[in-house]
Amino acid sequence: MLYAPKEEIFLRINRLKHLMEKASMDGAFFHYKIDYYYLTGTMQDALLFVPLDDEPVLFVKREVSRAKRESPIKRIVSIRSIKDIISFIKTMKNVGVQLDVLPYNDVIKFKDILGDVNLVNCSPLTRELRKIKSPFEITLLERAAAIQKMVYEYIPHVLVEGMTEIELGGILEAYAKALGHEGILRVRSLNYEAYTWHILSGRTGSIVSQSDSPMGGLGLSPAFPVGASMKRIKRNEPILIDFGICYHGYQIDQTRMFAINSMPKIFVDGYEACREIHYKVLDKILEGWTSKELFEYSKKLADDLGFSEYYLGFKPHKVKFLAHGIGLELSEFPFIAANHDYPINDGAVIAIEPKMVFPKRGACGIENTVHITNGKYRILTNTEERIIVI
Amino acid sequence: MLYAPKEEIFLRINRLKHLMEKASMDGAFFHYKIDYYYLTGTMQDALLFVPLDDEPVLFVKREVSRAKRESPIKRIVSIRSIKDIISFIKTMKNVGVQLDVLPYNDVIKFKDILGDVNLVNCSPLTRELRKIKSPFEITLLERAAAIQKMVYEYIPHVLVEGMTEIELGGILEAYAKALGHEGILRVRSLNYEAYTWHILSGRTGSIVSQSDSPMGGLGLSPAFPVGASMKRIKRNEPILIDFGICYHGYQIDQTRMFAINSMPKIFVDGYEACREIHYKVLDKILEGWTSKELFEYSKKLADDLGFSEYYLGFKPHKVKFLAHGIGLELSEFPFIAANHDYPINDGAVIAIEPKMVFPKRGACGIENTVHITNGKYRILTNTEERIIVI
Repeated sequence: MLYAPKEEIFLRINRLKHLMEKASMDGAFFHYKIDYYYLTGTMQDALLFVPLDDEPVLFVKREVSRAKRESPIKRIVSIRSIKDIISFIKTMKNVGVQLDVLPYNDVIKFKDILGDVNLVNCSPLTRELRKIKSPFEITLLERAAAIQKMVYEYIPHVLVEGMTEIELGGILEAYAKALGHEGILRVRSLNYEAYTWHILSGRTGSIVSQSDSPMGGLGLSPAFPVGASMKRIKRNEPILIDFGICYHGYQIDQTRMFAINSMPKIFVDGYEACREIHYKVLDKILEGWTSKELFEYSKKLADDLGFSEYYLGFKPHKVKFLAHGIGLELSEFPFIAANHDYPINDGAVIAIEPKMVFPKRGACGIENTVHITNGKYRILTNTEERIIVI
Repeated sequence: MLYAPKEEIFLRINRLKHLMEKASMDGAFFHYKIDYYYLTGTMQDALLFVPLDDEPVLFVKREVSRAKRESPIKRIVSIRSIKDIISFIKTMKNVGVQLDVLPYNDVIKFKDILGDVNLVNCSPLTRELRKIKSPFEITLLERAAAIQKMVYEYIPHVLVEGMTEIELGGILEAYAKALGHEGILRVRSLNYEAYTWHILSGRTGSIVSQSDSPMGGLGLSPAFPVGASMKRIKRNEPILIDFGICYHGYQIDQTRMFAINSMPKIFVDGYEACREIHYKVLDKILEGWTSKELFEYSKKLADDLGFSEYYLGFKPHKVKFLAHGIGLELSEFPFIAANHDYPINDGAVIAIEPKMVFPKRGACGIENTVHITNGKYRILTNTEERIIVI
């Protein structure tokens, strides 16, 4: 197992404190494991307290010796009750708490413990820091991509006519897990669950569902109405495989197209249009265009290529994003989206996914996870891009 | 796909209204998909509003036609913005909102829309209703158990010396998915994630982690520090397989013991002690003992059998529950636990899991999902209980 380097954790804490100072926070608490993992290197059941003018304290409920092994944080203490934290807290005025994810009742209880303080949401601070990936994080993403490449190269060996989408999903998941894939993808949401087995064949690619995706898929039941289904995969239909991988908490996203015997021309053309959009938008990222401009530009390209009706879904189900940041969460900053107005800065890692959905027929598209670095882009998901026809 | 019967949904809504009346709520909103699925039959992205004196309204963000197909609720409307709900709301005084799961910031925004009302947590109402399972729910649990039985019967065909825990987990997961297992288990928690592949061999069974379980396991990384790991499975060690299945949203939990060549005597003895505790506690449930009494009784039994040191973990990592309710969530009411004081009523479904953990050596135990019905207990997880030695 890899542990986050000490220097990296201390650098992250220092950068956090800098942002806390700018936001006038005297201290900040991180209850959400994705964020305290980023700041400490451990996901044991814990609560992180970062005072502006002192060393951070990690309060661990379970299991403290493991947290100490995994995290270089110096003050790691065991707590039984949340009230045990009081002795570590000095008088504070503005206190950061993760108000965007922590349930209302938990915040109220926590406020009772803190006493008369002004609560401020501190999640924007970690979300800001996490936008820029470090070399260590890129290494983990590269390892995730290496697992993913092996999985995609395995597909032609196992994909056969008549198998169900979920059967293929399960086989790929098993293969990926044996290589270190953690099986769970993570999103910051009460209701939306990410999952790995997003495999859509033929018309299931045109089925819309609860997820904010051009194509939701049929899924297995009303209680899991997304992704791979019991539909059997046939010859001569598009097979869209959007199979995320998670390695040491870092996620990578990629979509490639497959077919048995042949791929209908409209999907081949749609796929090539998606590739063109994908590369042209990447070029404009490097020129400093803002998120909004990039999104509009991609729509313009889809129009010019004759795919406006199908680009990012069909009406009224079109989605309003083309790319999402990716790392510890499947969907994090920065986004390329209709209502986001900032450039995609150097250091960002985004999953860019132009897709076309043809009503009742299916879907096609490409997705790569891309690192913007030193004024260039570098595609981390290095699986070959041609359509694989078996 | 199975849809929840119309009569069942209407009955649930009526029972909810009865509880709302008792709690003096004029209306209640359900934002959390597990609960609105229970009340409507759909998990599309939605918000359910139940006025005390009128028909419920399901506001659907995505995708409304699918919600209409899945749910018998009469008023299903499409919304773009949360503000669209205003026209459906009459003046109310006490309004239910799910304050235990909805993030603080979302509650504050929502309160702005509702205006001057008194917010009350309405989650206890659905959690109360969900304690008693209907015949339809039992059917789904039985189907989940049937998948699980097939998975466990598959184990002797694929378990070989030298494979990693996660490799076995992936193979079983693939097999289960092909049969309809949904791959995701669900818990009501910000930080705790459930997963299917809880496979622990030899000493990984004694590794404690962040989860509230006697044995956490090693997991794959500090970012996924629970469950199956890259440890290779050896001969002559206990292999604990706690492999949950989810079918149409309903989860079932079961633990059985396996070994290659032989199982060391202490684990065989520990397993038989667990079985004895399991059955003796079930008998006392039928006699109307309270949760607390049942828990203390199980501890007494473990003492008498000579396993007090190892029962439900070793010090200081012992857990304080023996059983959890199970259904749409992996862990729901009722519990058999140190600090719960109620009887386990007729209609409940619980997963009862006495387990022994031997420091540095490993773990053993049994788990069954059991339906308490008509004054009897019925074990839903009907996989044979003997230790399987390959």
